Amino acid sequence: MSAPSERLAAPEMMVERWFNTPQPISLDRLRGRPVLLHTFQMLCPGCVAHAIPQVQRIARMLRDTELAVIGLHTVFEHHAAMTPVSLEAFLHEYRITYPVGVDASGGHGPVPKTMAAYGLQGTPSTVLIDRQGLIRYSGFGQEDDIAIGLRIGLLLADDPRGGADDRARADDGTACDDEGCRP
Amino acid sequence: MSAPSERLAAPEMMVERWFNTPQPISLDRLRGRPVLLHTFQMLCPGCVAHAIPQVQRIARMLRDTELAVIGLHTVFEHHAAMTPVSLEAFLHEYRITYPVGVDASGGHGPVPKTMAAYGLQGTPSTVLIDRQGLIRYSGFGQEDDIAIGLRIGLLLADDPRGGADDRARADDGTACDDEGCRP
Amino acid sequence: MSAPSERLAAPEMMVERWFNTPQPISLDRLRGRPVLLHTFQMLCPGCVAHAIPQVQRIARMLRDTELAVIGLHTVFEHHAAMTPVSLEAFLHEYRITYPVGVDASGGHGPVPKTMAAYGLQGTPSTVLIDRQGLIRYSGFGQEDDIAIGLRIGLLLADDPRGGADDRARADDGTACDDEGCRP
Amino acid sequence: MSAPSERLAAPEMMVERWFNTPQPISLDRLRGRPVLLHTFQMLCPGCVAHAIPQVQRIARMLRDTELAVIGLHTVFEHHAAMTPVSLEAFLHEYRITYPVGVDASGGHGPVPKTMAAYGLQGTPSTVLIDRQGLIRYSGFGQEDDIAIGLRIGLLLADDPRGGADDRARADDGTACDDEGCRP
Repeated sequence: MSAPSERLAAPEMMVERWFNTPQPISLDRLRGRPVLLHTFQMLCPGCVAHAIPQVQRIARMLRDTELAVIGLHTVFEHHAAMTPVSLEAFLHEYRITYPVGVDASGGHGPVPKTMAAYGLQGTPSTVLIDRQGLIRYSGFGQEDDIAIGLRIGLLLADDPRGGADDRARADDGTACDDEGCRP
Repeated sequence: MSAPSERLAAPEMMVERWFNTPQPISLDRLRGRPVLLHTFQMLCPGCVAHAIPQVQRIARMLRDTELAVIGLHTVFEHHAAMTPVSLEAFLHEYRITYPVGVDASGGHGPVPKTMAAYGLQGTPSTVLIDRQGLIRYSGFGQEDDIAIGLRIGLLLADDPRGGADDRARADDGTACDDEGCRP
Repeated sequence: MSAPSERLAAPEMMVERWFNTPQPISLDRLRGRPVLLHTFQMLCPGCVAHAIPQVQRIARMLRDTELAVIGLHTVFEHHAAMTPVSLEAFLHEYRITYPVGVDASGGHGPVPKTMAAYGLQGTPSTVLIDRQGLIRYSGFGQEDDIAIGLRIGLLLADDPRGGADDRARADDGTACDDEGCRP
Repeated sequence: MSAPSERLAAPEMMVERWFNTPQPISLDRLRGRPVLLHTFQMLCPGCVAHAIPQVQRIARMLRDTELAVIGLHTVFEHHAAMTPVSLEAFLHEYRITYPVGVDASGGHGPVPKTMAAYGLQGTPSTVLIDRQGLIRYSGFGQEDDIAIGLRIGLLLADDPRGGADDRARADDGTACDDEGCRP
């Protein structure tokens, strides 16, 4: 449980290249809208089987609301196999239409910059950012459908329980080791 | 889209017998808490395959919140096959632990009283009632996990979009004819 | 692993009442055809969620082959809740069209006669009987789709591996405790 | 129904590079064993979501039988995104352990050589080859679990119905357009 005053400001995204958007996207310009930031790698099985289809459904379901859905390709392994050329074919084949950014490669080590700034454990990760630009929720691994719906409902309503309420997840006891990738 | 002023008050439940609760439950006494009212028949395939497991997960996930989860056995067919004796065995075998009421049989025709008062089309049906006792949502058939999570999130936050927002469902285009039963 | 000579003859079914067939069925008269004998209880969650839909698909898929598909309602608990009247409504609601017999109640104890004669552990159980009337396979709990298809393929081909081959199941490591009912 | 004499001999595979095998594999040397030849592309959603997990389960389930399970990467689109470097990372991430060959690029057009020799429509495709080296079954798109199990059972038993029996599939009415890729 964290009081609102303890919430962290969401760091700005550092992106090398964008797909599915005519111009670069910044969290700064999205201020005032809630944001679902979804990080993935195209060769991460848990991302492909669970997280991406879930985010696609959320994006389709809530396209007429204020929620902004953004994908971030945070490659921290097999860099030669997951280049932007491969990602572009992947986005085409999987019919992903929400904006996707390529996380900027890091100065040191394999972890890219935005992923490092958010302290994400691996892929897939889900970050919910409120209208004030504060991080409401950040989770690694598979998200339960009901629980993510609930979190987004609270986020859209700007209810502070949106971030603090970790009961939904904890009760489900999902073990994400098999479904997520850690650096 | 309905403005708050157009919302209907949730009629009181008319119940012959309760299971899983030491004393009868009334919506009147639940005023101040949001309510998920779930109607079913024990021999309705769509209820058993989808709606009941979904409600069980919601009840487990949100047991520490204010949400009240109530099941209502609204038998409108095969009355001899779905008596309270059969229902009791069913609740035991399916490990249903939230309170379940047996909807009072109607004076005229096969539709029981609470089902008629709410104008429900069949089973399963899902009714969301807000803290003021107003109906926020009423739907027949299978509910999408993300969409029901979203609705409950908005309901918990007491956000008026909780009921008006039918985009979530409509976009999914679920055809419930195969999964629900109509009288 | 059992050599063909060790195979047991399938005991005849003892049935109180048949549904979905104009006249009683006996294994004796089915000699020459392979048989899938599927036992269940209408209030057994694992039967309803997994076994019955699987058997329905097999019956539909293989309706033009020699395979005979037979359901057997082996009630060993909640007898008052699973009478033939309830079963008839259940078969109608779940659109079960293959022949279903009601296993004859036993002289002693709750286990009905055919279930006892086969030594079945609970519901659901799956028994495969070859053209000679010998038991090729008998298993309790959820059957894997690929494995049951494989067994039936070997049975149709009258290949002796049909019964002996327990590798298919073992590798899948299904724990049936949550999905099946034992007396 | 086709008589055995009408069956086509399975053309030899033409492979540029093998993974998961110490030496190249040829159908000629596998004569006497039944073969499941599974073709895919690493960026084909239907392959990743359905066909590959199914083949992995079959390979695991039947590893102690004579069945040989072989994957073939038949790239006919996005060649730059599905190089052997990318495939190697893909096989590693998806924990694919059966032998996988890279189909030799064709002289003319995008379709690789083995895929063309078999006249396959796209990915995923499933080819079953009997002990005599004849094609028993060749299908494009998602294979039903029960039906593929049944076909493999008949193939292992060397029953001629293994190939001719298209009832299993037809009855299921699977539409593969959304799940498979055609050149």
